Amino acid sequence: MSDHQLPGKINLREKLALIDKLWTPKIVGELNGQHLKLAKVKGEFSWHQHDNADELFLVIRGRLTIELRDSNVELSEGEIFVVPRGVEHRPVADQEAHILLFEPKGTLNTGDVNNELTAPADDWI
Amino acid sequence: MSDHQLPGKINLREKLALIDKLWTPKIVGELNGQHLKLAKVKGEFSWHQHDNADELFLVIRGRLTIELRDSNVELSEGEIFVVPRGVEHRPVADQEAHILLFEPKGTLNTGDVNNELTAPADDWI
Repeated sequence: MSDHQLPGKINLREKLALIDKLWTPKIVGELNGQHLKLAKVKGEFSWHQHDNADELFLVIRGRLTIELRDSNVELSEGEIFVVPRGVEHRPVADQEAHILLFEPKGTLNTGDVNNELTAPADDWI
Repeated sequence: MSDHQLPGKINLREKLALIDKLWTPKIVGELNGQHLKLAKVKGEFSWHQHDNADELFLVIRGRLTIELRDSNVELSEGEIFVVPRGVEHRPVADQEAHILLFEPKGTLNTGDVNNELTAPADDWI
């Protein structure tokens, strides 16, 4: 099999440099029905849940708080949290943070809510 | 939902400190039927393939070469490669490297080959 038939490697820093809009996850990879996404975030997102998708957050740069209804999870660089399906959550970042997401293909960033923050679920970079 | 019912956050550096054996992936998270694993590697692994599993490699520290039959993919820190199912590959690291793996639950590290490098597919840390 030649290299041309395979997707290339993914450099997280180079991919992040292509993102200019906050709270707009971009797909960088696909495997086993899941999408690997990158996003830049700052401020407060909206409360939402994903009824049929567990969602992984990995902080690449900065800090991210995953607010849950009864507790908060504070993530620094190199820390991961998996929000189980059906659990309401709200990501918040005081300063700009860069995050990697892993979730099933088609997962909407705002989950069960459709609002001004809702971004396309199929944008590759 | 209280914090006690949710899995906690995963600190990659702390989890890696718990691994002492090379080429022995340890599970640190689970979502959507997939396992998130960490491994320390050095030297040459064995050639193998996963017939029904795409496999993601993310280099956290060091450098990793994914040898394919017709090409090599050289990964540095912050770089990812997805080996599609059915594609023969061999990971090689000249110096110790730390990697994150993402693949379906039950995926064996040596794929279709059972040898002295085969590790349990269900070891959590």
